[in-house]
Amino acid sequence: MTAKVTVLGAGYMGSAITFPLSDNRLEVNLWGTWLDNKLIESSMKGYHPKLKKPLPPGVKLFYWHDLANALKDADIIFIAVASEGFVKVFNMMLDNLDLRKQYYFFKLTKGLVQYNGKVLRATEAAFDMYKKKFPKKRFYWTTIGGPVRALDLALRIPSATMYGISHDEIKSILPSFSTSYYRIFPTSDLEGVEICSTFKNIYAIAAGICDGLYKSKMDGFYHNVVAFLFNQGVSEIAKIVDLAGREKQTAYDLAGVGDLHVTSAAGRNRRYGEMIGKGVDSEEAFKKMYKEGEYGEGYIALKLAIPWLKDCYNILQLKSRKKYCKGQQKVETDINFSSYLERELPLLNTLYNIIFRKHRPSDALANLITQLGF
Amino acid sequence: MTAKVTVLGAGYMGSAITFPLSDNRLEVNLWGTWLDNKLIESSMKGYHPKLKKPLPPGVKLFYWHDLANALKDADIIFIAVASEGFVKVFNMMLDNLDLRKQYYFFKLTKGLVQYNGKVLRATEAAFDMYKKKFPKKRFYWTTIGGPVRALDLALRIPSATMYGISHDEIKSILPSFSTSYYRIFPTSDLEGVEICSTFKNIYAIAAGICDGLYKSKMDGFYHNVVAFLFNQGVSEIAKIVDLAGREKQTAYDLAGVGDLHVTSAAGRNRRYGEMIGKGVDSEEAFKKMYKEGEYGEGYIALKLAIPWLKDCYNILQLKSRKKYCKGQQKVETDINFSSYLERELPLLNTLYNIIFRKHRPSDALANLITQLGF
Repeated sequence: MTAKVTVLGAGYMGSAITFPLSDNRLEVNLWGTWLDNKLIESSMKGYHPKLKKPLPPGVKLFYWHDLANALKDADIIFIAVASEGFVKVFNMMLDNLDLRKQYYFFKLTKGLVQYNGKVLRATEAAFDMYKKKFPKKRFYWTTIGGPVRALDLALRIPSATMYGISHDEIKSILPSFSTSYYRIFPTSDLEGVEICSTFKNIYAIAAGICDGLYKSKMDGFYHNVVAFLFNQGVSEIAKIVDLAGREKQTAYDLAGVGDLHVTSAAGRNRRYGEMIGKGVDSEEAFKKMYKEGEYGEGYIALKLAIPWLKDCYNILQLKSRKKYCKGQQKVETDINFSSYLERELPLLNTLYNIIFRKHRPSDALANLITQLGF
Repeated sequence: MTAKVTVLGAGYMGSAITFPLSDNRLEVNLWGTWLDNKLIESSMKGYHPKLKKPLPPGVKLFYWHDLANALKDADIIFIAVASEGFVKVFNMMLDNLDLRKQYYFFKLTKGLVQYNGKVLRATEAAFDMYKKKFPKKRFYWTTIGGPVRALDLALRIPSATMYGISHDEIKSILPSFSTSYYRIFPTSDLEGVEICSTFKNIYAIAAGICDGLYKSKMDGFYHNVVAFLFNQGVSEIAKIVDLAGREKQTAYDLAGVGDLHVTSAAGRNRRYGEMIGKGVDSEEAFKKMYKEGEYGEGYIALKLAIPWLKDCYNILQLKSRKKYCKGQQKVETDINFSSYLERELPLLNTLYNIIFRKHRPSDALANLITQLGF
């Protein structure tokens, strides 16, 4: 196996993953996007401003215009850019790959992407782009999920991560990434992992909203409602994985339960939710964080989740009805989808109501809660 | 339906449940055990020392020697004593029931009990005692689980709770307990709920141990390891429910995921774990809490869990082997059970090693973590 790795994206996760990789004595190149110039510049001087510490000594740093050099000799590529830049960076990367080589891709990016006028999982978009460039090569692909907060990882605090792998052979590479503090759990349910990773960012907003609503008045006494919504989030993620035809069990494991736990406890999506719970307008809150260089993936994921879920729902309807006629049927499906959301994914629907239909968080949550159970 | 309820046990949960019951305009009697004298005395003066607030105005209070009056006219009985006193109190209660009436029991007690020389779920012991007294009557029984911390409930913060019911008719009573802040989710997997409620107290100790080990040095940066162990706890609870022949799905719902969430975030078992993580001897920590009037259910549950699990395991072995001969076979089963624990329930085994075999928490956890995944 090769010992050369390139990591694309020098933000939180791209930088943090260099710790276990370097501790494994792999040669690591870290490439920053056009948005990462300051991070690369500062890291070259010995301090990563997001991780608030130096990167491991051996890591070589590359500015965005130096992509060809960053990718030279590597055949393992980690992609850790924000979902927003995924399609663009992946295409740039493909233009700089060696057509004679076989690459192994590991995607840390979480979320859905817009591609050719559709909303897709990032892996679907990547597969399409890759096949156009390398029609005859295997697509060795891994989607990474699970509870790994970058700051903790960079401090070498024990973490578990789920690797959704496209081919069984990939398993043989994994011991060269893992350390005593970075434990890897492979699964063949790649799609399930990817769906969980996207939706946990959305559902973590709920924990933040609770903080915004209750923390100032009820600190230490609203654990029950947080646990209630956490559990509801897990149940809904499992339903979504099932709706997409994948394994519910993935949602009940590290990619779902584990990752929702860490994301609800800390991180940008929780913080985003807290602002909303305190009464900040949902778009203003996103913009405020964006200005500070923090990207609220959950907000974007929620926006894209509705058309994506509708597609999943329609495909399922199609399958169950066998035949499908446009027109009248289409209108019915829209109504059905809307009631499906209300009935089966009430927390997702409530978050959508709060964030995009500007319902009052306290009213919307109270409404949700009385609608559940007896 | 009647409107008279008696709650047995005036500690945290017995007192807290009087809030939704009273808000439903039910007549509520609250009976304290011989350990609750001070709680009853203070509550009579308008202040419950554990909940740190007055009980609802209509609640009638009874000392332990006044059980007959406390039970008079009631046909709904909530049992909220600690697992330690369950068998004794249940028997005392049976002696004071009206043989002509049909009762509905709701068990808030969590944990396993010792009964006739065996370790059983509290429901199994209760069933046996009940049938001796009322051989011809139906045993209308509900085991309550799910993420309800008493302090939060008494403040009317929204909570969700799972009711594992023995008969479908019980559902019709539930709306008379529920409020906008106390949401009830019934399930027929009574045993599953009971197992989850017992084991979540054990697994919550793990979150406490992390706090003890990391909080002083790494506050805010050990979310990953907490989420890792939380997820492992959920997985193991699901395996235990499955081992006992019940539904894994119950563990992935409010009784498992939800309740482990709240218990890991706050409460006595987390606090117990924190002391151990800081280096306090496991028995000393239990005694210290006991002196302060706080009962560490997780410690007791873990002690009883091993023989209980062994029974489940043996029954499963019996079933799969069809015939079973004592002697040599018995020895093999013991060895097999021990390796089953290590292999299938490694976190439970680690907690047992820390608490009863006095392994160093930091070493034992590190050992567990490197043993999981790649």
